Amino acid sequence: MNSQPTPQDAVRARVAQMRQVMRNEGVDALLVPSADPHLSEYLPGYWQGRKWLSGFQGSVGTLVLTADFAGLWADSRYWEQATQELAGTGIELVKLQPGRPGPLEWLADNTPANGAVAADGAVMALASTRQLQERLQARKVRLLLDKDLLGQIWPDRPALPASPVYAHLPPYASQGRREKLAALRQTLAERGADWHFLATLDDIAWLFNLRGSDVSYNPVFVSFALIGQEAAILFVAQSKVDAALRDTLAADGVELRDYSEVAAGLAGIAADSRVLLDPAKVTSGLLANLREGVRLVEGINPTTLAKSRKSDADLAHIRRTMEHDGAALCEFFAWLETALGREVVTEVDIDVQLTAARARRPDFVCLSFATIAAFNANGAMPHYHATPEAFARIEGDGLLLIDSGGQYLGGTTDITRMVPIGTPSHEQKLDCTRVLKGMIALSRARFPRGIPSPLLDAIARAPLWAEHIDYGHGTGHGVGYFMNVHEGPQSIAYQAAVTPHTAMQVGMITSIEPGTYRPGQWGVRIENLVINRESGKSAFGDFLEFETLTLCPIDTRCLLIDQLGSEDAAWLDAYHAEVRRRLEPLLDGAALQWLHERTRAIG
Amino acid sequence: MNSQPTPQDAVRARVAQMRQVMRNEGVDALLVPSADPHLSEYLPGYWQGRKWLSGFQGSVGTLVLTADFAGLWADSRYWEQATQELAGTGIELVKLQPGRPGPLEWLADNTPANGAVAADGAVMALASTRQLQERLQARKVRLLLDKDLLGQIWPDRPALPASPVYAHLPPYASQGRREKLAALRQTLAERGADWHFLATLDDIAWLFNLRGSDVSYNPVFVSFALIGQEAAILFVAQSKVDAALRDTLAADGVELRDYSEVAAGLAGIAADSRVLLDPAKVTSGLLANLREGVRLVEGINPTTLAKSRKSDADLAHIRRTMEHDGAALCEFFAWLETALGREVVTEVDIDVQLTAARARRPDFVCLSFATIAAFNANGAMPHYHATPEAFARIEGDGLLLIDSGGQYLGGTTDITRMVPIGTPSHEQKLDCTRVLKGMIALSRARFPRGIPSPLLDAIARAPLWAEHIDYGHGTGHGVGYFMNVHEGPQSIAYQAAVTPHTAMQVGMITSIEPGTYRPGQWGVRIENLVINRESGKSAFGDFLEFETLTLCPIDTRCLLIDQLGSEDAAWLDAYHAEVRRRLEPLLDGAALQWLHERTRAIG
Repeated sequence: MNSQPTPQDAVRARVAQMRQVMRNEGVDALLVPSADPHLSEYLPGYWQGRKWLSGFQGSVGTLVLTADFAGLWADSRYWEQATQELAGTGIELVKLQPGRPGPLEWLADNTPANGAVAADGAVMALASTRQLQERLQARKVRLLLDKDLLGQIWPDRPALPASPVYAHLPPYASQGRREKLAALRQTLAERGADWHFLATLDDIAWLFNLRGSDVSYNPVFVSFALIGQEAAILFVAQSKVDAALRDTLAADGVELRDYSEVAAGLAGIAADSRVLLDPAKVTSGLLANLREGVRLVEGINPTTLAKSRKSDADLAHIRRTMEHDGAALCEFFAWLETALGREVVTEVDIDVQLTAARARRPDFVCLSFATIAAFNANGAMPHYHATPEAFARIEGDGLLLIDSGGQYLGGTTDITRMVPIGTPSHEQKLDCTRVLKGMIALSRARFPRGIPSPLLDAIARAPLWAEHIDYGHGTGHGVGYFMNVHEGPQSIAYQAAVTPHTAMQVGMITSIEPGTYRPGQWGVRIENLVINRESGKSAFGDFLEFETLTLCPIDTRCLLIDQLGSEDAAWLDAYHAEVRRRLEPLLDGAALQWLHERTRAIG
Repeated sequence: MNSQPTPQDAVRARVAQMRQVMRNEGVDALLVPSADPHLSEYLPGYWQGRKWLSGFQGSVGTLVLTADFAGLWADSRYWEQATQELAGTGIELVKLQPGRPGPLEWLADNTPANGAVAADGAVMALASTRQLQERLQARKVRLLLDKDLLGQIWPDRPALPASPVYAHLPPYASQGRREKLAALRQTLAERGADWHFLATLDDIAWLFNLRGSDVSYNPVFVSFALIGQEAAILFVAQSKVDAALRDTLAADGVELRDYSEVAAGLAGIAADSRVLLDPAKVTSGLLANLREGVRLVEGINPTTLAKSRKSDADLAHIRRTMEHDGAALCEFFAWLETALGREVVTEVDIDVQLTAARARRPDFVCLSFATIAAFNANGAMPHYHATPEAFARIEGDGLLLIDSGGQYLGGTTDITRMVPIGTPSHEQKLDCTRVLKGMIALSRARFPRGIPSPLLDAIARAPLWAEHIDYGHGTGHGVGYFMNVHEGPQSIAYQAAVTPHTAMQVGMITSIEPGTYRPGQWGVRIENLVINRESGKSAFGDFLEFETLTLCPIDTRCLLIDQLGSEDAAWLDAYHAEVRRRLEPLLDGAALQWLHERTRAIG
């Protein structure tokens, strides 16, 4: 009789097989990051080798393998999940923390002198390769970048994605691709660069006003781009672009070449050229194709700055999108409150119902990330996702955390709300109240134009720090326009590096999402999206403030109203009045009644 | 008939003479920073060449001179003062601002290709020299560091200071110099360094438990130090150390050599040695004396970290010092209130009376910086200092800003208070109230141990930003223990670089001093010193909080109490109760009565 091998057994077998390959190849240590040739956050299956080899399903983590050590580095968001998923695999969770050695430091300290470390250069950012090389130099360890060891033992590796590419059209695309290309060429000229090489999928999709669905949740397609004063070459699988779009692109001066031709494209750049690229956003493996004599002009991708600043025309669409997204949420919440009383509701049901409510709204395309519906203890895992195999029923007392979002032709949403189930405890309400105070404090803030965004984080955290509470994730990430739900360059996170590119500028959309996580008990997070707008000029300079974009009631039954303070209570009442005014016209029946009930003033 | 030359005439003549020297020497541009071989904040007269040459009397500013350009870069604290002092000199004020070219960038952009820039290497930090060299490379401009052009035209250059050196003794010096040297040697061993070279005067004074008065307000003496596992060499003018102290130092293993022997001392380091030093705190001119083959181990001076963390024993002395400093202030304020009604009081009188009140207190040594007593418009200049030639009378209505501090054997103080004169206007009170709200918000804050201090700044500024107000200086600087009133490594300033060394640790003393400056009208600043103490551990980490050290009433007649909010009002009442409790025993008569009056509860 065969017993079915467990997932843990499978991981152990793969690790053993990989160690055999490493011995054969003379490799002392193998580095497997969560990365692809585009340095994307969400990886197509073809590049999810780290998940396959380690069994850890979180989206970010780095595996290091030697003959007698297997460690997976993950940040605090994933500690609970990684502990569970790595149990029994022989792979140790190494907690990624400031001041502790990360995987690169570990390799530098632990690889035998004159040994060899292997990593797939095709997925290693130039900046990471440089860092690793520098660290390994001290002990004369070689870095082998041209070996795809994973390919040798991964028989059922998924194929490259093949979804069609389509145009993001007016009125939603408010700026044409010719105009965007012209602006980019101007920047190239200013920087003295002949070419610009782009590997990041959201930059490419934004620049060409194209979208795709090669990657879960991000409306992008697998491609590279090479732009010069005369040429604009898009490297993409030929089968993905239909004849009509091909003609339109040709008319706009965009030349299509096959995805596989990118190496040849780079090799074709003349030896005395200057190529602008971001060393953190292009892999060293690809750049190995450049001729000697090609000089790099290093800097952030100009498109990353341009796409972070949404125009007034974009903003009009985003406001409308937020109204429809909020209306979908009201319909869902109205269903949930009724359903909870009369049927079994699970975390998976919530995902299904909420997705269906969004899908009924105009211009909906897909979710912007996997819905997090997390009841009580599951809420303590900031990136929890219920599956048909593992989920909780919503029953008894406590807190339900729902973090969800949609991609629409006119914008991208991302919202977290807390739902009271039965009777939440005093402690649970206290946590919700403090988190809301943090969210309101930052939402109301004004600040000098151009201040590095990480410096604003303390404003949201102060009410939590006062009670000796903190959270391991950032307070705010940039959000795209019908584009990735996580984008740069800004980041409201005290852990983030303070660089000039993190400066706050008009039109940037950022999340504000403080939280509190009590492992094994519950988690709280409340999240709105906000956009930077002009606040006013004074003798002291130019100031910005936030306009809150997200429109959905914040359930006051989770709060201790008397602890909120009069200013925060006034903010909440004003917010709810605005939510009611904007969503009313889009709702009727039970959903409208729910909206009225949940936006009642507390003041 | 001769007319007396004005200071402006003198500056024009010096600049003309310097341009002649530059032509003779083949120099296209001259850089004159505010710096000395110890990279001190306050410079002995011998190194105040920039002041002498430019006529600008502010403590920080950089002069650049070419054949047809003369510019002085100064930060916003000095714009008003520099505008006044440079008028008529032919030297242009260049406002130092983020994003605008500083003097190094200006030189790189404006010196003719293949030209020559001169700077005195003896006062250029290694890090600055490297930066400048790198920038000049692009246009093949040479950097000449061995020319002291200033020396050629400065006939009455002051002599080097010659004040005696004395020991900082127990109980105030709570850790012996043998112990401090042992700890430093341990760090050297850990860093793999054979020697440590120190040029910064406060590090040297702290390490050896010695003090001096070579520099205004800072109790330090001009010296260098070279420490190895066996040796501890102090380079100091022989005449400054008396026989008894010389014997004590010898018994503790400290070897004395003359100040002038430092070059020979550096040249004597064996060629294969490793020398730990901070490239920002040692000049390239001195390091030119090192033999080829000596390797640098670069990093912050270990003493800078050690001296920033005051011990509990230090803290006990500091608390006592703060009580006496606060008592001196009460005596002064009691005098001021009476005097204002019956005699002419000027800003200079305030300096004299306040200094006298401090001098009556035990263990007083000297002021910790030049008193700022600034009435109305003068208060808009953050670094204003009244002189017998230029001062204001305190009369009519408005606000008097007094920023002052003392050096005591048991600690260093720095405090700013606002005094209402006649009837301050509503706008003036509004400014005082908002500034106080910022100071209280940060004073009450808790925060994770080790957070980079610049990230806390937004907490103090948020109440001002809300009204589109900001200020050009940092919110908080580190403060020494009977040592410099400005010390690192921490800095609560959003403009400061976020480095690991700026991390908040237990025992650091920092100022909290938000402000508002309205040029030509008035200025507001309120400042207390605080010390980092443990706040508590939780599941979320270790937290720190501030203990307010400064003890002196905050005049509520400058405030709009109803705008303060109940939490801030409660903080102020609690603070005043503590001030009253701690200062009462040290006061009597009018001063005691003033204390009672000014600490009355508002709640």
